[in-house]
Amino acid sequence: MVGEDRLQGRMQEKCGIFGIYSANASCDVAAQAYMALYALQHRGQESCGIAVCNEGLMQYHSDIGLVPDVFCKDTLSKLGKGNMAIGHVRYSPTDQKSRSNAQPLVVRHIKGAMAIAHNGSITNSEALREKLQMEGTVFHTTNDTEIIINIITKKRIHTNTIEDAIDKAMFEIEGAYSLVIMSPSKLIAIRDPHGFRPLCMGKLQGDIVFASESCALDSIGADFVRDIKPGEIVVVDKEGCRSITTHCGKKSGMCVFEFIYFARPDSVIEGASVHTARQRAGAFLALEHPVQADIVFGVPDSGLDAALGYSRQSGIPYGVGFIKNRYIGRTFIQPTQEERDRAVRIKINTIEASIRDKRVVLIDDSIVRGTTMKRIVKLVRETGAKEVHLRISSPPFVNPCYFGTDIDSRDNLISCRMSEKEICEYLEADSLGFLAKEHVTKIAENAGCRFCDGCFTGNYPVPEPEIIPKSKYEKKIGK
Amino acid sequence: MVGEDRLQGRMQEKCGIFGIYSANASCDVAAQAYMALYALQHRGQESCGIAVCNEGLMQYHSDIGLVPDVFCKDTLSKLGKGNMAIGHVRYSPTDQKSRSNAQPLVVRHIKGAMAIAHNGSITNSEALREKLQMEGTVFHTTNDTEIIINIITKKRIHTNTIEDAIDKAMFEIEGAYSLVIMSPSKLIAIRDPHGFRPLCMGKLQGDIVFASESCALDSIGADFVRDIKPGEIVVVDKEGCRSITTHCGKKSGMCVFEFIYFARPDSVIEGASVHTARQRAGAFLALEHPVQADIVFGVPDSGLDAALGYSRQSGIPYGVGFIKNRYIGRTFIQPTQEERDRAVRIKINTIEASIRDKRVVLIDDSIVRGTTMKRIVKLVRETGAKEVHLRISSPPFVNPCYFGTDIDSRDNLISCRMSEKEICEYLEADSLGFLAKEHVTKIAENAGCRFCDGCFTGNYPVPEPEIIPKSKYEKKIGK
Amino acid sequence: MVGEDRLQGRMQEKCGIFGIYSANASCDVAAQAYMALYALQHRGQESCGIAVCNEGLMQYHSDIGLVPDVFCKDTLSKLGKGNMAIGHVRYSPTDQKSRSNAQPLVVRHIKGAMAIAHNGSITNSEALREKLQMEGTVFHTTNDTEIIINIITKKRIHTNTIEDAIDKAMFEIEGAYSLVIMSPSKLIAIRDPHGFRPLCMGKLQGDIVFASESCALDSIGADFVRDIKPGEIVVVDKEGCRSITTHCGKKSGMCVFEFIYFARPDSVIEGASVHTARQRAGAFLALEHPVQADIVFGVPDSGLDAALGYSRQSGIPYGVGFIKNRYIGRTFIQPTQEERDRAVRIKINTIEASIRDKRVVLIDDSIVRGTTMKRIVKLVRETGAKEVHLRISSPPFVNPCYFGTDIDSRDNLISCRMSEKEICEYLEADSLGFLAKEHVTKIAENAGCRFCDGCFTGNYPVPEPEIIPKSKYEKKIGK
Amino acid sequence: MVGEDRLQGRMQEKCGIFGIYSANASCDVAAQAYMALYALQHRGQESCGIAVCNEGLMQYHSDIGLVPDVFCKDTLSKLGKGNMAIGHVRYSPTDQKSRSNAQPLVVRHIKGAMAIAHNGSITNSEALREKLQMEGTVFHTTNDTEIIINIITKKRIHTNTIEDAIDKAMFEIEGAYSLVIMSPSKLIAIRDPHGFRPLCMGKLQGDIVFASESCALDSIGADFVRDIKPGEIVVVDKEGCRSITTHCGKKSGMCVFEFIYFARPDSVIEGASVHTARQRAGAFLALEHPVQADIVFGVPDSGLDAALGYSRQSGIPYGVGFIKNRYIGRTFIQPTQEERDRAVRIKINTIEASIRDKRVVLIDDSIVRGTTMKRIVKLVRETGAKEVHLRISSPPFVNPCYFGTDIDSRDNLISCRMSEKEICEYLEADSLGFLAKEHVTKIAENAGCRFCDGCFTGNYPVPEPEIIPKSKYEKKIGK
Repeated sequence: MVGEDRLQGRMQEKCGIFGIYSANASCDVAAQAYMALYALQHRGQESCGIAVCNEGLMQYHSDIGLVPDVFCKDTLSKLGKGNMAIGHVRYSPTDQKSRSNAQPLVVRHIKGAMAIAHNGSITNSEALREKLQMEGTVFHTTNDTEIIINIITKKRIHTNTIEDAIDKAMFEIEGAYSLVIMSPSKLIAIRDPHGFRPLCMGKLQGDIVFASESCALDSIGADFVRDIKPGEIVVVDKEGCRSITTHCGKKSGMCVFEFIYFARPDSVIEGASVHTARQRAGAFLALEHPVQADIVFGVPDSGLDAALGYSRQSGIPYGVGFIKNRYIGRTFIQPTQEERDRAVRIKINTIEASIRDKRVVLIDDSIVRGTTMKRIVKLVRETGAKEVHLRISSPPFVNPCYFGTDIDSRDNLISCRMSEKEICEYLEADSLGFLAKEHVTKIAENAGCRFCDGCFTGNYPVPEPEIIPKSKYEKKIGK
Repeated sequence: MVGEDRLQGRMQEKCGIFGIYSANASCDVAAQAYMALYALQHRGQESCGIAVCNEGLMQYHSDIGLVPDVFCKDTLSKLGKGNMAIGHVRYSPTDQKSRSNAQPLVVRHIKGAMAIAHNGSITNSEALREKLQMEGTVFHTTNDTEIIINIITKKRIHTNTIEDAIDKAMFEIEGAYSLVIMSPSKLIAIRDPHGFRPLCMGKLQGDIVFASESCALDSIGADFVRDIKPGEIVVVDKEGCRSITTHCGKKSGMCVFEFIYFARPDSVIEGASVHTARQRAGAFLALEHPVQADIVFGVPDSGLDAALGYSRQSGIPYGVGFIKNRYIGRTFIQPTQEERDRAVRIKINTIEASIRDKRVVLIDDSIVRGTTMKRIVKLVRETGAKEVHLRISSPPFVNPCYFGTDIDSRDNLISCRMSEKEICEYLEADSLGFLAKEHVTKIAENAGCRFCDGCFTGNYPVPEPEIIPKSKYEKKIGK
Repeated sequence: MVGEDRLQGRMQEKCGIFGIYSANASCDVAAQAYMALYALQHRGQESCGIAVCNEGLMQYHSDIGLVPDVFCKDTLSKLGKGNMAIGHVRYSPTDQKSRSNAQPLVVRHIKGAMAIAHNGSITNSEALREKLQMEGTVFHTTNDTEIIINIITKKRIHTNTIEDAIDKAMFEIEGAYSLVIMSPSKLIAIRDPHGFRPLCMGKLQGDIVFASESCALDSIGADFVRDIKPGEIVVVDKEGCRSITTHCGKKSGMCVFEFIYFARPDSVIEGASVHTARQRAGAFLALEHPVQADIVFGVPDSGLDAALGYSRQSGIPYGVGFIKNRYIGRTFIQPTQEERDRAVRIKINTIEASIRDKRVVLIDDSIVRGTTMKRIVKLVRETGAKEVHLRISSPPFVNPCYFGTDIDSRDNLISCRMSEKEICEYLEADSLGFLAKEHVTKIAENAGCRFCDGCFTGNYPVPEPEIIPKSKYEKKIGK
Repeated sequence: MVGEDRLQGRMQEKCGIFGIYSANASCDVAAQAYMALYALQHRGQESCGIAVCNEGLMQYHSDIGLVPDVFCKDTLSKLGKGNMAIGHVRYSPTDQKSRSNAQPLVVRHIKGAMAIAHNGSITNSEALREKLQMEGTVFHTTNDTEIIINIITKKRIHTNTIEDAIDKAMFEIEGAYSLVIMSPSKLIAIRDPHGFRPLCMGKLQGDIVFASESCALDSIGADFVRDIKPGEIVVVDKEGCRSITTHCGKKSGMCVFEFIYFARPDSVIEGASVHTARQRAGAFLALEHPVQADIVFGVPDSGLDAALGYSRQSGIPYGVGFIKNRYIGRTFIQPTQEERDRAVRIKINTIEASIRDKRVVLIDDSIVRGTTMKRIVKLVRETGAKEVHLRISSPPFVNPCYFGTDIDSRDNLISCRMSEKEICEYLEADSLGFLAKEHVTKIAENAGCRFCDGCFTGNYPVPEPEIIPKSKYEKKIGK
């Protein structure tokens, strides 16, 4: 999908994380992190950062911007060599970009320094924050991550090791969190007990690496080893690599939207190829919502894989209906209100030879507000399509997500406001079909986990948390 | 194709041009040019610029960088309103980026100001330059464009109109040139007598627009009217739009590589869809070089359309074999020499589910040096392909281009150094097939022109020019 | 003094602070802070920042760079209107510029948000930090300021008001600190019990302002009211302005080097004009170290006032011996080692007409390492001076400062390594005279306070603290 | 003088130039130019540039901005080594900063490349431009310099050497011009026959250097050799250094305002010290306009030297009345209109100890519009002065300058609109005295030249030229 829905900062997962531990003392671990963050850039474009540990001394750099904006040769060389590094890319759901919220977060405490990179969303963050503040804690950011680091530090006073402190802290922290934590001598990877967000381990010669997605392992030439288990704490130090499983064994609930939209198609999560999952979603769609048509194509880039699946299952020829302009960036000067309709054509343009006089099946991964989709359907019609049949490779969004997916408010979700028939009329499509709820968790073939599909079904792997709106809190300060 | 060949600045066409004439006195013509240049950005990423004419007063801005880097709200608003604008994106074949070579070039002469944007290459530029210098002309740039503007100005002294001066100048200027020229009161579009480079006309409400490709018309919502004819001079002023055809009627020689690589797939040139042309190239390839295989896919982005054509013709399923990282930009920090092999995976990564245990047909548009292609084949093999059959949707490059395509020196062209069999062995492919020379000009179905395929065949629409190497001249000065 | 000693980051005071409380709800307090920080820029050039409070909501912006680099119209307008603001300029003694150490520091705690700006140095910071860390506190910066804010927050849990918390915290915090603190509803100014660093109050129509120096009051058109008393806490809120004097009454110890070098000559501190104090230092020098000479001039800018005082007392004509290049900034590209001698002439050049064939008295405020002074003396000789008599308007530096002045290590201080006679020979001056220790505290005529001259005499107003070297701590982390 | 008059771009001389010829083939001549331009920065702050010649190959870089903004290590190293370099700093009188007008101007012509840097103003530029355009010349800039380079190039076709071409061109070019010109093998310095603008020669070991002012020689450690004579052409090449004197011998007319305001006080021009000249202007003022007073001080920086001269002559003590903020730069955010009065205090603040209850003599170098001076007088009064006696170290401005000084239009010049008595009343000064016209050319003691004081007297060394307003021409194009 393309256009204002996404551009308005809706429906985005929040972060990508990476960590590397080298057996050698003085490696260019910052360069490895830099390349891995490039591969994870799709998981967060607001800010990014890298922290390097060299014999206990931590150097870090982070800022607002894409990886190539924040890091240049100079900043990388200032980070220096080391035996460990962690990195982070961040997406922020709000308009206010905050440099102070950039990660990794690096702090000092009684036992030394600690760096942390976090992907997810803590459901009891407000209760934890209030408890900490009652004890006199000051907060420098509005990140959940700062809460996690304070809880761990409090535990650290009375424990012998950082991993024991983390283990204890996990009894208090609820919600979704995949973490990489760097102490002066250890690199630690953690996944919450339900495993909402992905995190995998790889090997690069003797080095151990962790990344949100396997595509980051590929980018640095590392071999995939395995996914971190839900609830697992993996500790890497000079003694080697070991696992703490106190919190393992709960019902897993991997976010199914990772397969539908977030993750990169070349990643493999819980044993299932993301590309294949999207193709399968398209195939299910073809079975559920068949139609007589001449060509099927996807909205680039997120609808392309499902379109291929729809084509193969249905036998309708696969085509290329759109060209996406690869140069439109964050600095694109928005056209005036009245020019909005036209503006979509600067971002994606139709290929008339694929469309004119054809009955078209158009595939996208999801519909949020519907305004951009309406423009795209109109564009396809104006290019000469005889019929436009819209197929969506996920069920309608109707419920909130508490675990790191930034879903628009229900007031804005078109599926909360209209029936499918009404949506079809609003979009001026000839027909409309969503993926069936019962198929959504079946798209990731042979996946070794259960899924959370709460945003579609309202069924969450944990009791639905009572959330204190953050906006109230965040209003108190801004940078 | 992706990777070092292209990144090293080889095989790139040089420019995209745009012009707009509005019937209304004070329009936001700069904003139109800005959006059109976005759509032409693929034709040149080194520098860009816009010149606006407001009641005879010309304002301009140009610099090194992409359109979004060079233009912001502030620079656009400083250009102000007007009734005409021209724009330019430029690619430079050399490493030395020169701000002074950015276009449009804006000068003053005895009859007022003039702005010019140029796409192409003048074959007798050194002779013309020497003649002008003998008359005392000084040159501020190393552009052919400055030669053109001096020739026109010399003619302008003895002619009543700018179009007469252009008409006379065209008897002296040889080679490839599509031009838009702005005088204080006229917008003029010109194509050289052989029509090497594309240039089309569109209509946006009452306004007349010209652009290198029709995709730029789409981006601003203009309707395509027609291509400018080879040798035609189209003059737009308050009297309307008229044509001078003194130089029309020669044998046309549209660059066929526009269809193979340069142009955007959504553009229609000389009546032929670029996307369809590439699909047809793929279909020809399937007919010429059939193979038993399980999947066919293209190297993104330039090989994708041909792969679809190959798939349809051969019946071998179309797939997605690669993910291209959309965030790798000009500021990407190059890995060290020994990391080069790995680096290709940061730019494009394979999708294992599409490749493992499969016999693969891999399509790209061309091979220049072969080093990147070798890495890609290796990557596909390492991902688990059983066989890799390489198909190239153009014939081998073996001859120089004198008309604006920056082909690598013969010493570097793999097809000049090796036989096809040797190339196949060097690339470690299981088989290799190039598009047949006799098919290359047939890919653009129903195109209303003849083609120049001299780079493949050595047959040019004009006698092969004797070129004085520019490098010698350019060495004298640098910025 | 000019040149490498200062440029190498030695002998610099660390900060300037500012605060404003307006009776009106929605004022452009950020603009006032911006202009005041301009006037305080000489107190710190590394980083700066402004925090604005608007009905309890705090917005802030800070970064590395001078005031005009960090703040533009855009950043100021994003800070928005408000009824309170505080600002800070910072000098860092080390080479590592840290954005995270920029102030104001803004945090949230159990009772809301708090912003703080600090000038000074806490002598028991390491003990306090360790105590806090034992309780589980994490630190995000290496600033003393973060310690202060944590101590205050801990007290805040058990007190009714922020000022009570500050009052209690002051029993624990030792050393030099002038502070402005902003709570959601109050602006509070604090000076440590010995009043090491200056802080004054002014009035601008109905608004109350605080600033490190009175020149900042002048810059925004505010009237000087009085200095904050050593140990005083001044609270401003909608009830008005009130004083807490629990910590008042100790022996004051205003840093005398504020008069000699730090403060701007147009400031009035503790009732004494800085300009007059420097003139008096020059007059004392003339009485202590008379000499037969033809002209007296100062090293710009810090030696100029004392030179005028020397001239008036001695009757030797005052002249202008040097021109300082006003365009040399932080980005000046340093010449190579062998060009150092010459480089001084780019920064200051001599006026031959003032020097040739003259017996010269040359005045500067202090000598640190002596290397730059040696170059200046050499330059004056080469310009044709018959004799060069050097007079220094402070006594020799021989002791450390614990209260915010960054004195070079004793190993580097020339006065720790050589006798005055040896220094004179090393500098190749004809004679050398320092201001007598017994006169240094007499330069600020009628000042309403006692002084700390410990760096010259070894006598501090408090027992000499035992300092845990910070460098050891700071080594653990860097940004 | 300080403040809006100057900031509004009035009364500024336009340029500083520099050239170096080294006997050695591959020197860091760019670094020498860089340091010299720093010393000439006061002559132009809009743009700057350096061109380097290395065995005939010219590299150059120029841009809008101060020397430290335009040149960094990277840009300097890209210029590379060479045996010659020329440099330029430029001031533009208009608001429209134009990158294309930055110098040096580097062009190619029939005999090779040429670079030129120019200080001055051509009085017959419009006639020359029209003549050139009639011959078909196109102009890329609105600089006089481009006219000069075209005239020289036209002559070059029919001459054997570049110096012969220059010699011939000088018969056609009228007005003020000091030039350094670089051909592939020669460095040439030229001063117009009346010597309006300064230009001197120095020696640095074996190297020959040229600079607008001697302070630039000092900055690179070069020894002053002599001033270039009015009308002289000095050619430096591998044969050595020789002089062409065809145009020498006319009545000289060095701009006297160089001594009053433009030049740096440490420069020596035509044998006279600028600092001494300003002191003498102050002394003349004291003789012409004596007054009973307690203190005399200057408006920084341009009034300081004259204040010292007034003090010595009158016996009234010299003092420091103002502190100028050294950090106010080009990016200073202007206060709103109603805050203008206050804004002057951010730029210069008074020292109360020097002013309160005193009868003050206040010295500045000139009055243009009077608005800033009115604010300064008001500020001194508000600081507590009993009387304010204003003395101006130049006569009233009442005539235009045709030779490079950008004097405000007569409508804006206060001395064209009011009598001295009225000005005094307008400024609310107790008395006002200008330097007498008959003394102005006497301030430069023993100067080896005659002066042009036309702006004060209306007597120019040449018949008053008829000027075609440039504004009309410049309106045609803008960048």
